[in-house]
Amino acid sequence: MADKENGQTVQLGPDGQPMSKKGLKKLQKEAEKAAKKQERQKQIQQAADATQQDDFAKGCYGNLPMIQSREKVDRELKPIAAVDQSMDGQKIWVRGRLHTSRGAGKQCFFVLRQRQYTIQALLSVGSEVSKPMVKFASTINLESIIDVEGIVRTTDVKVTSCSQQDVELHATQVFMVSSASPRLPLLIEDASRSVTSEELATVNQDTRLDNRVLDLRTTANQAIFRIEAAVCQLFRDALTQRGFVEIHTPKIISAASEGGANVFEVSYFKRHAYLAQSPQLYKQMAIAGDMDRVFTVGAVFRAEDSNTHRHLTEFVGLDMEMAFNYHYHEVLKVIGELFVSIFRGLQTKFESEIETVSKQYPAEPFKFLDPSLVITFPEAIKMLRDSGIEIDEEEDLSTPNEKLLGRLVKAKYDTDFYILDKFPLAVRPFYTMPDPNNPKQANSYDMFMRGEEILSGAQRIHDPEFLLERAKHHAVDMEKIQAYIDAFKYGCPPHAGGGIGMERVTMLFLGLDNIRKTSLFPRDPKRLTP
Amino acid sequence: MADKENGQTVQLGPDGQPMSKKGLKKLQKEAEKAAKKQERQKQIQQAADATQQDDFAKGCYGNLPMIQSREKVDRELKPIAAVDQSMDGQKIWVRGRLHTSRGAGKQCFFVLRQRQYTIQALLSVGSEVSKPMVKFASTINLESIIDVEGIVRTTDVKVTSCSQQDVELHATQVFMVSSASPRLPLLIEDASRSVTSEELATVNQDTRLDNRVLDLRTTANQAIFRIEAAVCQLFRDALTQRGFVEIHTPKIISAASEGGANVFEVSYFKRHAYLAQSPQLYKQMAIAGDMDRVFTVGAVFRAEDSNTHRHLTEFVGLDMEMAFNYHYHEVLKVIGELFVSIFRGLQTKFESEIETVSKQYPAEPFKFLDPSLVITFPEAIKMLRDSGIEIDEEEDLSTPNEKLLGRLVKAKYDTDFYILDKFPLAVRPFYTMPDPNNPKQANSYDMFMRGEEILSGAQRIHDPEFLLERAKHHAVDMEKIQAYIDAFKYGCPPHAGGGIGMERVTMLFLGLDNIRKTSLFPRDPKRLTP
Repeated sequence: MADKENGQTVQLGPDGQPMSKKGLKKLQKEAEKAAKKQERQKQIQQAADATQQDDFAKGCYGNLPMIQSREKVDRELKPIAAVDQSMDGQKIWVRGRLHTSRGAGKQCFFVLRQRQYTIQALLSVGSEVSKPMVKFASTINLESIIDVEGIVRTTDVKVTSCSQQDVELHATQVFMVSSASPRLPLLIEDASRSVTSEELATVNQDTRLDNRVLDLRTTANQAIFRIEAAVCQLFRDALTQRGFVEIHTPKIISAASEGGANVFEVSYFKRHAYLAQSPQLYKQMAIAGDMDRVFTVGAVFRAEDSNTHRHLTEFVGLDMEMAFNYHYHEVLKVIGELFVSIFRGLQTKFESEIETVSKQYPAEPFKFLDPSLVITFPEAIKMLRDSGIEIDEEEDLSTPNEKLLGRLVKAKYDTDFYILDKFPLAVRPFYTMPDPNNPKQANSYDMFMRGEEILSGAQRIHDPEFLLERAKHHAVDMEKIQAYIDAFKYGCPPHAGGGIGMERVTMLFLGLDNIRKTSLFPRDPKRLTP
Repeated sequence: MADKENGQTVQLGPDGQPMSKKGLKKLQKEAEKAAKKQERQKQIQQAADATQQDDFAKGCYGNLPMIQSREKVDRELKPIAAVDQSMDGQKIWVRGRLHTSRGAGKQCFFVLRQRQYTIQALLSVGSEVSKPMVKFASTINLESIIDVEGIVRTTDVKVTSCSQQDVELHATQVFMVSSASPRLPLLIEDASRSVTSEELATVNQDTRLDNRVLDLRTTANQAIFRIEAAVCQLFRDALTQRGFVEIHTPKIISAASEGGANVFEVSYFKRHAYLAQSPQLYKQMAIAGDMDRVFTVGAVFRAEDSNTHRHLTEFVGLDMEMAFNYHYHEVLKVIGELFVSIFRGLQTKFESEIETVSKQYPAEPFKFLDPSLVITFPEAIKMLRDSGIEIDEEEDLSTPNEKLLGRLVKAKYDTDFYILDKFPLAVRPFYTMPDPNNPKQANSYDMFMRGEEILSGAQRIHDPEFLLERAKHHAVDMEKIQAYIDAFKYGCPPHAGGGIGMERVTMLFLGLDNIRKTSLFPRDPKRLTP
């Protein structure tokens, strides 16, 4: 839809935005330079072709023309992951990146990589392979994409540096599909190195993020983002099985808290609008609209100038909301089961990906209980006090206390995940249902992984008059909450829910140290690119 | 996470935004009014209680205290959908909304509704039911949520106005769970009426959207948003089965086309940023990052002042991108199969929901072919010319011509879905791969449902130098595209993809006339609420 929606006459950028004509001169210069470079390459190619005139391997190597879908090619490319001893002696084609390469006179050893899979290949002067052909292969830049034809051979010794350890490929044809620049801002080998290796170079976070297209190619990153996709899928599947319906809530909202702290402002035609910090209001309206059980996966925005290992200005929220019959623990139970589904699903279906990540970023395997552990806030306070912390019962947990509590819970219950129920009423928002059995408590909970909060939720007040009373108590802006209160005027079932940070769940499940490792293109106060 | 992320001391609104203290006075007044109202209600309740003193049905009716999770109640509420003849004679509890109610002296007939399911109930003065109890039931406002205990009785005549046609409930207890305001801005009955009924009142679009929590309760809307959830799920399932990985792309982007038409601007700390109009760049970077096949579901933003039946300023994009071997038709085939999966999945698994929608909004059942029909742009031009339209081969299709072409294709091939391949190069963006076999064509396609475009896509140029050349030809802003071009500098496989508008697919599959019917909380140039 990108192209059409914007009309046909305007030139569009890659993000569908129309382009201004500024910088045109610069562009032309660049284009001229490019044209010259192309000309030079043509000459080099012609020279190569000339050499090939006298070359018996002519036509078995060189630069492929850019793949422009000129014709349908009837050639099967085998996935590198599938190449094993069962193919011994077969001549096959594979496509991959040149991962490493070592030319030595009449031979060129190289490793081909396709995502997390690698295979060793050998090009050796002989009856099918000429000297110029080996020379050509030796000069290919790392990270270029090449098509290789070769014969699969079982190796005597295991190739421990590759994923395909029992075979190698004796190349008979080599063609360049897409050439990489000779100077790479980072080497995949460096970017893939375990954090425990102290002597060899690694790549710092900013260099990685600045060059994310290269960084994403490491096997750890290939695994991390497959695991993150699974977190989403397991979240949706567990809820869909329990009768939840997926909804999509607007990101642009009118609700103008004139204060406007922590909220991004948007120019909306001639008005001001804001980016939603949570889909909560819309989830609740869906409940008031009889949708009964809903979830939504989408971007949420926080204009906080927090530069920490766990804050992003834009992240993916996994949100759910559910009507219940008599007690919000009906919902707490569903959320507890949901997390068990996610953790168990990851550990059973993504075992090899988890292992791949731990090779670069070692971590204790994630532990959880089934059913999920629930402890109450007063119990948590007691545990903290017992370990020497001075803390008030109506006080919220500080980040260090959360971490400590995580360690205490792990020591006592052997779980990295737990639910903390019955937060003090005073530290929760006005729309949180107070606990009728204890005026200082709320029907409100957080959930933690490895001592860090990954979900916050509560029973919400579904009665408009009580909501008004609580709003008055909290002295909130009336104008702002009128629309919110109106949502409950036409009858609303009791309900509770919560919001999960997707990147945090992935980070903490894998025991990673920075949320930027689990955000494909992270946004923080200092980073808006790429 | 909403609560915690924003710190504990600030009062938060329902969308997690902190509140200013403005309007506090107004708030206090409202709260005082509410307190007075509550006082009045208390008096009424006390009067009712007094009456109940002498009432043998005392304790079998009245207002439940607000469900605040005071205690766990050991009572099973039966889903209304499950109540049928097999329960004849059983005493059960159900919870539902008072859909309609008719009190007549010693009897009160009412219909209970739970989402799309309805059951008739009868409260009749007798040995268990007192006169004050019937009076109480008769005065309950429509749309209130009530708990009813009753005996299931098979009816002699089918109750054709309800979903549960063979049974009714002889009520023995009635309690108010959540009271609706006596004055409803729209009646569910009116909002549910078929568009073909000419004499009776219906509800206009704006009234519906202004009161979406009521509007969503119609059976048609319950069905529409279940179908829309299924569109997403079928999209993801079909691609996941084919090895695609879900990704999440940033909505806040730095890319500053200084012109800035059609793009929403965001204040980002002390800088300016923009809302992404498409995830295309990020999908392509994921491909350059070796993710091979990716999809993403998320909000996309268009600051177009288009007030039509099919434009939104914020909608949900179902986007996919895929590396291919030699020809972009490998991708076209996958997308064609994807749509077949979606259409077939909807028609087989959501037959009853589709029927429900068609009762209110009648439409011809959606037709499609397997495999999907592909026609080329020149073929389309010929079809249009044959039916008397003057049109140039390098011209884009106008909306009326798209519609006409849809009718011509339907007449000739009996399908409501088709793929139009080989658009003129001149009308496509600079990053579109030209057709090497025809300089006037591009490897670019749109897809249509009932004559309206729902996907636009293409083979993208994966070669940075050729991209620069095409950018020069289109005179695009160099500064803007540098980051885009850089993404391809380190080798990139040939790839193609496209973006689908979720709301459009749902609208056109169901034959609805307005995209606002398939957006839960639509955003257009004039609407930012609720």
